[in-house]
Amino acid sequence: MTHDIVTDTTTPAADQADEQSRRERELTAKVLASFDGAKDERLKTLLQSLTRHLHAFIREVRLTEDEWHTAVEFLTATGHITDDRRQEFILLSDVFGASMQTITVNNEADGDATEATVFGPFFVENAPRIEIGGDIAGGAPGQPCWVEGTVTGVDGAPIPGARIEVWEADEDGYYDVQYTDDRVAGRAHLFTDELGRYSFWGLTPTPYPIPHDGPVGAMLAATGRSPMRASHLHFMVTAAGHRTLVTHIFVRGDELLDSDSVFGVRDSLVKDFVEQTSGTPTPDGRALGDRPWSRTRFDIVLAASGR
Amino acid sequence: MTHDIVTDTTTPAADQADEQSRRERELTAKVLASFDGAKDERLKTLLQSLTRHLHAFIREVRLTEDEWHTAVEFLTATGHITDDRRQEFILLSDVFGASMQTITVNNEADGDATEATVFGPFFVENAPRIEIGGDIAGGAPGQPCWVEGTVTGVDGAPIPGARIEVWEADEDGYYDVQYTDDRVAGRAHLFTDELGRYSFWGLTPTPYPIPHDGPVGAMLAATGRSPMRASHLHFMVTAAGHRTLVTHIFVRGDELLDSDSVFGVRDSLVKDFVEQTSGTPTPDGRALGDRPWSRTRFDIVLAASGR
Repeated sequence: MTHDIVTDTTTPAADQADEQSRRERELTAKVLASFDGAKDERLKTLLQSLTRHLHAFIREVRLTEDEWHTAVEFLTATGHITDDRRQEFILLSDVFGASMQTITVNNEADGDATEATVFGPFFVENAPRIEIGGDIAGGAPGQPCWVEGTVTGVDGAPIPGARIEVWEADEDGYYDVQYTDDRVAGRAHLFTDELGRYSFWGLTPTPYPIPHDGPVGAMLAATGRSPMRASHLHFMVTAAGHRTLVTHIFVRGDELLDSDSVFGVRDSLVKDFVEQTSGTPTPDGRALGDRPWSRTRFDIVLAASGR
Repeated sequence: MTHDIVTDTTTPAADQADEQSRRERELTAKVLASFDGAKDERLKTLLQSLTRHLHAFIREVRLTEDEWHTAVEFLTATGHITDDRRQEFILLSDVFGASMQTITVNNEADGDATEATVFGPFFVENAPRIEIGGDIAGGAPGQPCWVEGTVTGVDGAPIPGARIEVWEADEDGYYDVQYTDDRVAGRAHLFTDELGRYSFWGLTPTPYPIPHDGPVGAMLAATGRSPMRASHLHFMVTAAGHRTLVTHIFVRGDELLDSDSVFGVRDSLVKDFVEQTSGTPTPDGRALGDRPWSRTRFDIVLAASGR
């Protein structure tokens, strides 16, 4: 018997740890099995993967019951501030980079295809159409900015007739839909010409915060994070036979590029917005009086459909 | 140069996959780094672990944008149905086993200490006190059930004066607080005697569903899961120098033991509830007329404080 005891290297403490681990693993296995009956295979995959990660998180951090209560209260407050005009769960997804990661996995790398970024809450259907070289500002205050480029496939072939939607905040950091006077400003759509070219007048992008007077803003404050978004101009580009591209361009030199609150910045999307002193001749001869302006170039490459 | 090409085993497709993986990993790294400035080390640990698991989930299942929208809508509906009387986020946590996993990690195995299970939403402070052998029913309908046992430490020493809170649903599946008439029924507290013993009359537990007319109920239905809870009787036991125990006992033979909607069942908590025909003498001589009754035994072992 003495021999048996000497060769038994398990200690009571190790036994307890084994038993604890067994209980935790067994519980997770039970929850996974509970979804086995789901008729929709994809739903089953999603819920089982979610269960595995959720349980792994709880086990890894040894979540306390107080922390669990705080999480329940946080989600409740997030639900209660959400209404037809405010979507705090999307903000929550945004500030955890979950929105951007979802965009990333749905826009697989394809040669030199332009990278996608977050859609954001400010797109509006049926924005006005402008001709090439037209102005999207619609009276929105801000510095004029000439934007030009081409739309091509990954093979380099120009794409004529591609539809380009553009939208942006004014220099006060607000989109038209954030005003209560039903204005339509800072948004438009246009089509590329037979050589895949486009150009328009917009506004030099300026930074603005995401709504931060709710639970998500409180979380950012508690972690020392800024609610500011890096300055950007939104694009959505559609063309038959190609993957729809939802993206932004950002302003090189913007000090917020490394701390964008929703992680939308990709290096490849940072562009030179070249400042032009007042009086510099404009590309289309437009008279801007004594106003300075800027110009940038954004050549867009669309992935093939199904990529 | 031919030699170079032959030894280069990367294919364009592999390059694309590498680039895609690099983008996804880089994004997660950025989000993790954004929490580096959190002053509270524990908050930082929690949010960084949550980020890792959330991103791993999205990458693993290749979450589509439609699925992401569905998730946002689900959480919004969960928030909107939640009010002072209905907590759908707790139900959500319950049906994913997250509540039970949190309980499990906070009640580490300690020798033969009785296992904990979910607290549930129906505990009420200041339930009536009864003497040993008293009745907790307070007029609640159901079959009488004699419950007895001891409270000891893991060393086997009896714990006198331990406070035992008990609460349960009536035979219609409702707790007193679910009625609108302010009744107090099916709940009480009592204390162990000098030998650590306790006993009381309760009701033989019966099954009931969790609220399933909301988003969580819809998810259960979509996955073929039942909202039913296995029959149970709640206990909370407190004693100086010992870890507070929140648990249930379940009824051996209950067909719901393997499909409890909140995963509260532990094998060690399943007890024999022995049916007694009408006329069988009761332990305390109580006259039950022609009513059948049941009896069970639940010996409770408390872990030491700090375990």
